[in-house]
Amino acid sequence: MQHDKNVTRTIGHLIDGQIVNDTARTQPVFNPATGQVSAHVALASVATVEAAIASAEKAYPAWRDTPPLKRARVMSKLKVLLEQRADEIVQLITAEHGKVLGDAMGELQRGIENVEYASYAPELLKGEHSRNAGPGIDSWSEFQPLGVTAGITPFNFPAMVPLWMWPMAVVCGNSFVLKPSERDPSSALLIAQLAQEAGLPPGVLNVVNGDKEAVDTLLHDPRVKAVSFVGSTPIAEYIYSEGAKHGQRVQALGGAKNHAVVMPDADIANAVSAMMGAAYGSCGERCMAVPLIVAVGDEVADKMIDGLKTEIAKMKVGPGTQTDNGGNDMGPLVTKPHFEKVKAYVDAGVAEGATLLVDGRGLKVKGHEDGYFLGPCLFDHVKPGMSIYQEEIFGPVLGIVRVKTLEEAMKLINDHEYGNGTCIFTRDGEAARYFSDHILVGMVGINVPLPVPVAYHSFGGWKRSLFGDLHAYGPDAVRFYTKRKTITQRWPSAGVREGAMFSFPSSR
Amino acid sequence: MQHDKNVTRTIGHLIDGQIVNDTARTQPVFNPATGQVSAHVALASVATVEAAIASAEKAYPAWRDTPPLKRARVMSKLKVLLEQRADEIVQLITAEHGKVLGDAMGELQRGIENVEYASYAPELLKGEHSRNAGPGIDSWSEFQPLGVTAGITPFNFPAMVPLWMWPMAVVCGNSFVLKPSERDPSSALLIAQLAQEAGLPPGVLNVVNGDKEAVDTLLHDPRVKAVSFVGSTPIAEYIYSEGAKHGQRVQALGGAKNHAVVMPDADIANAVSAMMGAAYGSCGERCMAVPLIVAVGDEVADKMIDGLKTEIAKMKVGPGTQTDNGGNDMGPLVTKPHFEKVKAYVDAGVAEGATLLVDGRGLKVKGHEDGYFLGPCLFDHVKPGMSIYQEEIFGPVLGIVRVKTLEEAMKLINDHEYGNGTCIFTRDGEAARYFSDHILVGMVGINVPLPVPVAYHSFGGWKRSLFGDLHAYGPDAVRFYTKRKTITQRWPSAGVREGAMFSFPSSR
Amino acid sequence: MQHDKNVTRTIGHLIDGQIVNDTARTQPVFNPATGQVSAHVALASVATVEAAIASAEKAYPAWRDTPPLKRARVMSKLKVLLEQRADEIVQLITAEHGKVLGDAMGELQRGIENVEYASYAPELLKGEHSRNAGPGIDSWSEFQPLGVTAGITPFNFPAMVPLWMWPMAVVCGNSFVLKPSERDPSSALLIAQLAQEAGLPPGVLNVVNGDKEAVDTLLHDPRVKAVSFVGSTPIAEYIYSEGAKHGQRVQALGGAKNHAVVMPDADIANAVSAMMGAAYGSCGERCMAVPLIVAVGDEVADKMIDGLKTEIAKMKVGPGTQTDNGGNDMGPLVTKPHFEKVKAYVDAGVAEGATLLVDGRGLKVKGHEDGYFLGPCLFDHVKPGMSIYQEEIFGPVLGIVRVKTLEEAMKLINDHEYGNGTCIFTRDGEAARYFSDHILVGMVGINVPLPVPVAYHSFGGWKRSLFGDLHAYGPDAVRFYTKRKTITQRWPSAGVREGAMFSFPSSR
Amino acid sequence: MQHDKNVTRTIGHLIDGQIVNDTARTQPVFNPATGQVSAHVALASVATVEAAIASAEKAYPAWRDTPPLKRARVMSKLKVLLEQRADEIVQLITAEHGKVLGDAMGELQRGIENVEYASYAPELLKGEHSRNAGPGIDSWSEFQPLGVTAGITPFNFPAMVPLWMWPMAVVCGNSFVLKPSERDPSSALLIAQLAQEAGLPPGVLNVVNGDKEAVDTLLHDPRVKAVSFVGSTPIAEYIYSEGAKHGQRVQALGGAKNHAVVMPDADIANAVSAMMGAAYGSCGERCMAVPLIVAVGDEVADKMIDGLKTEIAKMKVGPGTQTDNGGNDMGPLVTKPHFEKVKAYVDAGVAEGATLLVDGRGLKVKGHEDGYFLGPCLFDHVKPGMSIYQEEIFGPVLGIVRVKTLEEAMKLINDHEYGNGTCIFTRDGEAARYFSDHILVGMVGINVPLPVPVAYHSFGGWKRSLFGDLHAYGPDAVRFYTKRKTITQRWPSAGVREGAMFSFPSSR
Repeated sequence: MQHDKNVTRTIGHLIDGQIVNDTARTQPVFNPATGQVSAHVALASVATVEAAIASAEKAYPAWRDTPPLKRARVMSKLKVLLEQRADEIVQLITAEHGKVLGDAMGELQRGIENVEYASYAPELLKGEHSRNAGPGIDSWSEFQPLGVTAGITPFNFPAMVPLWMWPMAVVCGNSFVLKPSERDPSSALLIAQLAQEAGLPPGVLNVVNGDKEAVDTLLHDPRVKAVSFVGSTPIAEYIYSEGAKHGQRVQALGGAKNHAVVMPDADIANAVSAMMGAAYGSCGERCMAVPLIVAVGDEVADKMIDGLKTEIAKMKVGPGTQTDNGGNDMGPLVTKPHFEKVKAYVDAGVAEGATLLVDGRGLKVKGHEDGYFLGPCLFDHVKPGMSIYQEEIFGPVLGIVRVKTLEEAMKLINDHEYGNGTCIFTRDGEAARYFSDHILVGMVGINVPLPVPVAYHSFGGWKRSLFGDLHAYGPDAVRFYTKRKTITQRWPSAGVREGAMFSFPSSR
Repeated sequence: MQHDKNVTRTIGHLIDGQIVNDTARTQPVFNPATGQVSAHVALASVATVEAAIASAEKAYPAWRDTPPLKRARVMSKLKVLLEQRADEIVQLITAEHGKVLGDAMGELQRGIENVEYASYAPELLKGEHSRNAGPGIDSWSEFQPLGVTAGITPFNFPAMVPLWMWPMAVVCGNSFVLKPSERDPSSALLIAQLAQEAGLPPGVLNVVNGDKEAVDTLLHDPRVKAVSFVGSTPIAEYIYSEGAKHGQRVQALGGAKNHAVVMPDADIANAVSAMMGAAYGSCGERCMAVPLIVAVGDEVADKMIDGLKTEIAKMKVGPGTQTDNGGNDMGPLVTKPHFEKVKAYVDAGVAEGATLLVDGRGLKVKGHEDGYFLGPCLFDHVKPGMSIYQEEIFGPVLGIVRVKTLEEAMKLINDHEYGNGTCIFTRDGEAARYFSDHILVGMVGINVPLPVPVAYHSFGGWKRSLFGDLHAYGPDAVRFYTKRKTITQRWPSAGVREGAMFSFPSSR
Repeated sequence: MQHDKNVTRTIGHLIDGQIVNDTARTQPVFNPATGQVSAHVALASVATVEAAIASAEKAYPAWRDTPPLKRARVMSKLKVLLEQRADEIVQLITAEHGKVLGDAMGELQRGIENVEYASYAPELLKGEHSRNAGPGIDSWSEFQPLGVTAGITPFNFPAMVPLWMWPMAVVCGNSFVLKPSERDPSSALLIAQLAQEAGLPPGVLNVVNGDKEAVDTLLHDPRVKAVSFVGSTPIAEYIYSEGAKHGQRVQALGGAKNHAVVMPDADIANAVSAMMGAAYGSCGERCMAVPLIVAVGDEVADKMIDGLKTEIAKMKVGPGTQTDNGGNDMGPLVTKPHFEKVKAYVDAGVAEGATLLVDGRGLKVKGHEDGYFLGPCLFDHVKPGMSIYQEEIFGPVLGIVRVKTLEEAMKLINDHEYGNGTCIFTRDGEAARYFSDHILVGMVGINVPLPVPVAYHSFGGWKRSLFGDLHAYGPDAVRFYTKRKTITQRWPSAGVREGAMFSFPSSR
Repeated sequence: MQHDKNVTRTIGHLIDGQIVNDTARTQPVFNPATGQVSAHVALASVATVEAAIASAEKAYPAWRDTPPLKRARVMSKLKVLLEQRADEIVQLITAEHGKVLGDAMGELQRGIENVEYASYAPELLKGEHSRNAGPGIDSWSEFQPLGVTAGITPFNFPAMVPLWMWPMAVVCGNSFVLKPSERDPSSALLIAQLAQEAGLPPGVLNVVNGDKEAVDTLLHDPRVKAVSFVGSTPIAEYIYSEGAKHGQRVQALGGAKNHAVVMPDADIANAVSAMMGAAYGSCGERCMAVPLIVAVGDEVADKMIDGLKTEIAKMKVGPGTQTDNGGNDMGPLVTKPHFEKVKAYVDAGVAEGATLLVDGRGLKVKGHEDGYFLGPCLFDHVKPGMSIYQEEIFGPVLGIVRVKTLEEAMKLINDHEYGNGTCIFTRDGEAARYFSDHILVGMVGINVPLPVPVAYHSFGGWKRSLFGDLHAYGPDAVRFYTKRKTITQRWPSAGVREGAMFSFPSSR
């Protein structure tokens, strides 16, 4: 992508508390609702990333020795600042990602909840103490920080996913280098600046913008002790094995293809309403989006289709910033290439034999003809083997798969390469329990379409949706961002105590 | 005590979100630095207390069903308000209690830490879940609120001790009736109002001022499910048995007589400095004050005395509000009767044969001749059996007991009726561990003179310093303010899942 | 009751590892299946109980200092011995209590699970450790034992309820005095002897048989730090307030009147089968028995009645020891007076207007005409206010209450004075969740009629079914049988480390 | 190594409950005390390993659904069997590894403690439950097993290290394939057979003997979900990156070079005695052995040397099986090549300039001239950069490094590539705390030379001593051998509950 000379705003890095630009290489950032370039983002060189790592390493010792309660209070203050500056952050998200403002606010809110959880650090960092592990021997564990840690985050939640990572990392006593998505980096950068305003010392959190060069520098530097990643599965796999090869601790979250099972006894109106948001919210560009309905019985499938068609007909698609008439329901896709890719999936679905009930391909948004808008699409008769069944589309494309039994539905899900989220709609306790117990998926909703765990639980998929053993945020993040140290202690006798006992009368 | 007609300010109650006065009975509130009446406090009748309980009962169901995260956020907001309004609160504390402003700020800060801990509620309220407790059987525990709870708090920490109680109670989903000390009720009342400003619904927290009539009403009302108390041991004992007789859950914290052991290898300068604050801070009116030094060996005793006399000579005693020249180190005692009582203990100490090294009885503070000022007193050769050894004085009276061995020191402490706090000064790991392991005291300091646990641990003494089984604030408070509910669940088979499996092809 | 001179077996006490008899006062023990005296049990005098307490106090210090892992291993060994000697123990239970052998084995099995849980002590006794609670300050909690503890247990689970208590108490480092029910004391005594065989040092566990004299001695002795009780509500209330008055930590579990709600969508066959055991198992002499069905809708009531009548007709009632033809389903009631009392309740139910569908009053068991046998009784149209609705009968008497809605059923339950256990039969997730969330009962079953928590959760009711704040066995028992000690530690600088740094080259 | 035709005993594999031999490739197993071949061990082919994996996969579903309590009881029974068969197991260890019997018994005891911890599974597998995560929404976590897991273990603790792994893996519900060291495989195989005797179903635990072919098969098979490894750092690194490349969860424990710091105030007699065992126990073939003393001050160094030389002179080196005169203190090294390697290190130390105070190279054990015996060696003036300082020798070679300050000692340790264990000898609380806080080592002893965590804590080093984020055994093992599943549940309204409420009177 080329440099547009008419646009002068450059998005730089945050290193050691200062905004730094290295403009040798830049890349345009687009407004997806207009197709216009809104800024250029600096792409960090190896040297710039190394400067960020050096800054993090320098800030680490003092921060590590800052009591957890004090570190936690920076998080409490950041929370207040994020609430005060929410509108500004949300505007940045929408301008670069395209999602509607309300959706951006929801994203930010979820991110704030992770900051809130990080503020519980004094409770979360408690170790375990055993008196008399042996006679006169005590033993306890401490969860000490790792040192410099890093995070690499995706475009689809530009504010939230960084907040999954670095607040927990820094509150545990680490310093951090964040590499946000180069497509929509502004909100993460602003939030990092607010963290400093809240009291985070310079260098504890650094932000570098960049591409593969930055990523590989982070993965190969021995000063970086741990890397968290969220993105697609091929990259997650690369990060995991590359980091591991360099001795790093890695958690890498990848793609998803989430199925919602609708049972014959489901509350259909509720399921339809839930699925509208789950499929089309944020244009389907969520790793917890639900692009597949597995209807148990044709009757269920037909009712769901009736409901969905009615709702789709009411959807408003347009710029995310529009606020008149209650605003839009869905904005544009994130980039032109992604728009083309999603449209190609719809073409492929038709070619592969699925029934396209609602076709969003022809949509034109008046006054925004260059925006990357695609209308909602709905397929019936989607089947395993079709590309629209197997692959993660990350667009507003919902497919219906028809099965006869819950067992059949579960086999589909368990055989799929991804295992991020799933959901069942039913009123029946037994069906829900059987499903949640046996399904090979990490996050399960019972009548909850997007079962994103709350901030005090942890987020993570199974199978090829996550590489590593600890999940993101919540309790698992404490363990990921700390090293266990176990201390065993026995004091020798005949010290001051016994000495005092026997020698006193005479000698003192 | 009589009603002073020249003073028109009346301190009322907070019931159902409104300030309420029932002025049938009142009692004067004094400024201990001047001896003047500053206000009258309403003494609640049975009817008033019952109105407060009724308000709490009415507010309970909706508050109970408010998700813990939302309840926690009220605490986060309250924390911000308390920090913003700290100066005002601290002025109220000093005006009614007498302690110096810096000390009052320290008290408030400790209280805020409890509010902070309460804001971790979503983490703290987690129950335990067991999949397959039996085949197809799950079992889990929930910690549900009790309903209406109550707290009765002492004069010596008018802001902090209430904050030990109600934030944890309400964040667990209970409603609360607070009866603060009638001697210095204003700061607790203001804080309760700030809680409402922070979003606490009316009636969730009520404040009633009063005396034994109010206390007994709380103890005898079947709607009150739990009572927390901090005060003297005889009252604590009464509260515990009276509440128990009425089927209430009770935790009652009583008196203390904390000993500090100084070992021959101690850092004496450090011990002297620590003991100055521990003995004379807040005029010794703290349940964690340390009025007794147990010196192991005469050499230690003599060195400690040298150091203490030097430091005492530098102490400034005067009004707590004074801020010139860095302010005073110690203010007046809380009331005239208490002043007389403490002075009588000093007289008794002399009569019983202890050596009064520093005599604070003659102190006159210029311009504040009617204030309840007593200078710091220091006794040597204090011995078990003397009233100044056995009883809680709650004044600026420090005594030194001489022993020959740590064993002898520990026997003294273990034989004393109280077991609130204690401390050892030593460099020796073995001495510290032996002491902390075997001493019959609930809170133990190793070179820490006032080992008040941080807010994320719990506060409580042993022996006759605490009646009940759970300590105050911290993790124990979660358990005290909640009831365990254990659910065991098995779903019958042959429901929608199996039904669906067999009947589909034909019937749908 | 009189002494039968033909019976020579005397059941004594276990004190300091020895069987002791004080036969000044004795009481006969009956075989309820025959009405014959089988032994006499010694009733401990004050002096005997004090000897047991003294033995426990003497054994305490060394046991307290035995590492938790070693204490836990005594429990592991006891578990093996209990399994090896199960038949013998079960024979003792049936001979004195009357329940059928299979039921006695179930009881013992549940008790063994508590021994098993006690063997996890090293994990359960972990305290919480906080590094850098302040700069250079560490703080941690230890859960230290109380000293001498005691338990008073009921006749209905002579082996299991003692095993709820003392294994957890002693594995936490306490010593213990058990006073089992004087009606069926033999199994508890044998198990205590097996504990010594497993390695429990003499005096750590003592057993005294006795009556109110023994109970009051335990409640009034200052050496006894905590008392656990299971029995009827009036006695529980007495124990709680009397213990509290003497400064003891008390948990007192009382009576119950458990309701099972059957919803219109329930699996009726399953509910009928479950209710047969819940109502008539162990002759209804269980605090978790379910003597009331609340049928939502007349259709449900009628179906339940059909099913129950069919099943009742098949029940075999006779001596618990009988093993031919698969044994009996139900044995005799525990004593003659209890038999008379239960029968009087049935008479009262008829008089109060309930419909007696099955009348067990006329039952005669051939060859056991003097046994205390009462056949299963079934009432329809039971209503609040009737004595058979309000009071705990503890007999084989099942009543059906008819209501129209779940709300109505829940109001009944929530208004009842007891809140021990309850259960709902339904397939519907929403109904189950609404019920379990809002019902004021401590142990809730969803399609599980007797929701006795597994040993790694805790047992306890709400309202007047439990006095105290911690439940029996499981995690709560750890907290009940230990005192929290919080240690705060800071080491003075300029010790050997810095000393070494500066002075080494020259001075050493 | 060649096949010795005179030896007919072959050590095979345990697959699906059966002993299987594939003798296409074998390798001799030696008795290190005699240098004689005692058996041949089968080296598994790819097909054999795949058969083991298939067996594990087949056994998994039923075992996964077995309630944790039942799985735990297999561990309880195994513990009893291990105690009963301890002598036999210990003989196998000594015969193949060479360590003295007492040491082998210590190893087995430690292993049994892990079995004991595994038996706590019902407590350890509890998830976290949150009521009202949102209005009417509950959320909880379950820790579900992974499926087929594997372990690869070293020669130096042939019984213990396997017991670190598979008991925790299987008690969490996984099945397991163990590949023990091919040098001393017999004890692990016998223990696996005892596990089946204890009730472990066939296929849940399989043992394959083999070499790199077996290891690579385990690392490349997609059915193997997780691999635990203990061995040298180069192999650990290979395992970690190779497993990660194949998407496996891996924890790989590598080498060590543990330093013991002796401070000027240490109890020297105690330190000497502790170091004798730490340096020479099991011939130094322990990853927690302490081959380096860092003496703070020359005075300390000299005193330690005096003490060590005296003790070394008393040491008895000979066959591990010898029991007369209290047995030997140290046996032979494990293999001839290893013997040569260790001797070469001693040669190198001399060549590099360290002072060899005690030379064990010339040792001949009478009657065992072909055994791999090396006497204890002691070096003074060991310095960083020397091979005997940098590298893991795994032999009876102890070196003394002289430093002037604790800071200097700590810098040495922190700069070393390994960070497994370390220890400080001091009486001073401050020195101990400063050391344990800031040292970059995972397991720290304070006056405890081998700070191997007890079984209810976890084992793991830092830096290049461990690859992965979770430590071995203890609480971390639960997390390593399970996947977190988070369930979020909301039930739709208008189901049977409300339906029942409104429609009853008329319709039923």
